[in-house]
Amino acid sequence: MDYHFESEVRVRFAETDAQGVAHHAVYLVWFELVRIDYLARFRGGYPELRAEGFEALTTEVHVRYLAPARFDDRLTVRCTCGELRGARFRFDYAIERDGQKLADGWSLHAFVDARTHRPTRVPTWLVDEIATAERPSGP
Amino acid sequence: MDYHFESEVRVRFAETDAQGVAHHAVYLVWFELVRIDYLARFRGGYPELRAEGFEALTTEVHVRYLAPARFDDRLTVRCTCGELRGARFRFDYAIERDGQKLADGWSLHAFVDARTHRPTRVPTWLVDEIATAERPSGP
Amino acid sequence: MDYHFESEVRVRFAETDAQGVAHHAVYLVWFELVRIDYLARFRGGYPELRAEGFEALTTEVHVRYLAPARFDDRLTVRCTCGELRGARFRFDYAIERDGQKLADGWSLHAFVDARTHRPTRVPTWLVDEIATAERPSGP
Amino acid sequence: MDYHFESEVRVRFAETDAQGVAHHAVYLVWFELVRIDYLARFRGGYPELRAEGFEALTTEVHVRYLAPARFDDRLTVRCTCGELRGARFRFDYAIERDGQKLADGWSLHAFVDARTHRPTRVPTWLVDEIATAERPSGP
Repeated sequence: MDYHFESEVRVRFAETDAQGVAHHAVYLVWFELVRIDYLARFRGGYPELRAEGFEALTTEVHVRYLAPARFDDRLTVRCTCGELRGARFRFDYAIERDGQKLADGWSLHAFVDARTHRPTRVPTWLVDEIATAERPSGP
Repeated sequence: MDYHFESEVRVRFAETDAQGVAHHAVYLVWFELVRIDYLARFRGGYPELRAEGFEALTTEVHVRYLAPARFDDRLTVRCTCGELRGARFRFDYAIERDGQKLADGWSLHAFVDARTHRPTRVPTWLVDEIATAERPSGP
Repeated sequence: MDYHFESEVRVRFAETDAQGVAHHAVYLVWFELVRIDYLARFRGGYPELRAEGFEALTTEVHVRYLAPARFDDRLTVRCTCGELRGARFRFDYAIERDGQKLADGWSLHAFVDARTHRPTRVPTWLVDEIATAERPSGP
Repeated sequence: MDYHFESEVRVRFAETDAQGVAHHAVYLVWFELVRIDYLARFRGGYPELRAEGFEALTTEVHVRYLAPARFDDRLTVRCTCGELRGARFRFDYAIERDGQKLADGWSLHAFVDARTHRPTRVPTWLVDEIATAERPSGP
């Protein structure tokens, strides 16, 4: 998997649990953080999309936990966006610490009208900008 | 302090932290739970108040932590509501495990119009019902 | 899928997000709640297993979100446990409101020694009790 | 109040609630973040203190909410540490957005031995370093 974008996250004490590691539900919050950072590169990002009357719903998530993250760890959360088709899109993720992969996963999302919650096509400008950002760089 | 109402809460694993105890921020969530349970005794409770166009904002909180709560502990969260004046009201809380007090605290709230977020008087019917519920029992 | 166990959960206000629905990361917490309730039927449950020096790590999760859950919703979280092999086991879940399925998913777990975090076999008594609980009822 | 230290925080989507603002319990997590950042300036910070066998317990918190924080807001969380006496210390906080104060508060903490959870004096080196950091610059 070729990840084109990344964000940094530091494990908060409130995110740890009594096993002494980051609780497994928090990884979905970290995936969301990098997703929002990713979209922030295009026009006003997710806040702008919400202001324009769009919502992005999460319709499916998958996480594999390979090694625990601990309090105060500096993590790199990588992502790539693909499979934009109609109202749907997919993100793939990897979480790393010092080059070691701690987790990976993916999520599916649906673009909806914020009022009706009916599916609506991803705006063309966003499809185009993501396609450009995700284009493999040539030889 | 004479608490007139209580809810039961069980400490979730996700609520613990790497100290092996419930994280201190979670107590505010437990206070909120008992507050919502409390209001649920009157008409449709907080969901009804929101449907009628009211919001209750939290304007101040205070918590004293006396002893830690641990995973799977069954806690009793007690509360009493008082000082309803105009748009404002106050809750007092105590959290107990097997009769031992683990924490206490209070919160202040403002009733606002959900659209404008301007302060608005607590509905008379709610003031009356709370006054009845909180009335000291005789003789 | 035939779910043999269920727990009730009420959506907390703190679990909602600015879309007005329960945040998608919270579903993993609800899965964990029913899992711990499930294990609580056998001897001392998960707290007992931890006291005996075992930990159960979550190694993989999957969730499909079919319809949103809202503040104060009463949800039924169903689960079934299977595929106990060596140190590994799997739970399947469905979350329902008034008979409507809002989400489903599964999780994989590894039994480890709490000190070394090395994989260790699920205790035989637990395998046997789960097998009995999950046995299809005749004829 | 003269705050000598600050951290930046961005409001996460998962931290918002159905009122469309950051949930009030999250402010305690932000206070904790700046507290840990503050301590990180001295030797190995809080992770080092934990490694040396100390724990810092939160014994009391107070928050005043003046104006709501919203999704994606960039917040400045300021703090100052004082009243180190024996095993106890206090932090004061203010949360600002573009120079507007959204909340303030304080917390009390007790230094304990991580094994026994008995109060223990704040290490002298830490007292000295904090005193230096908090010394008013003259004239």
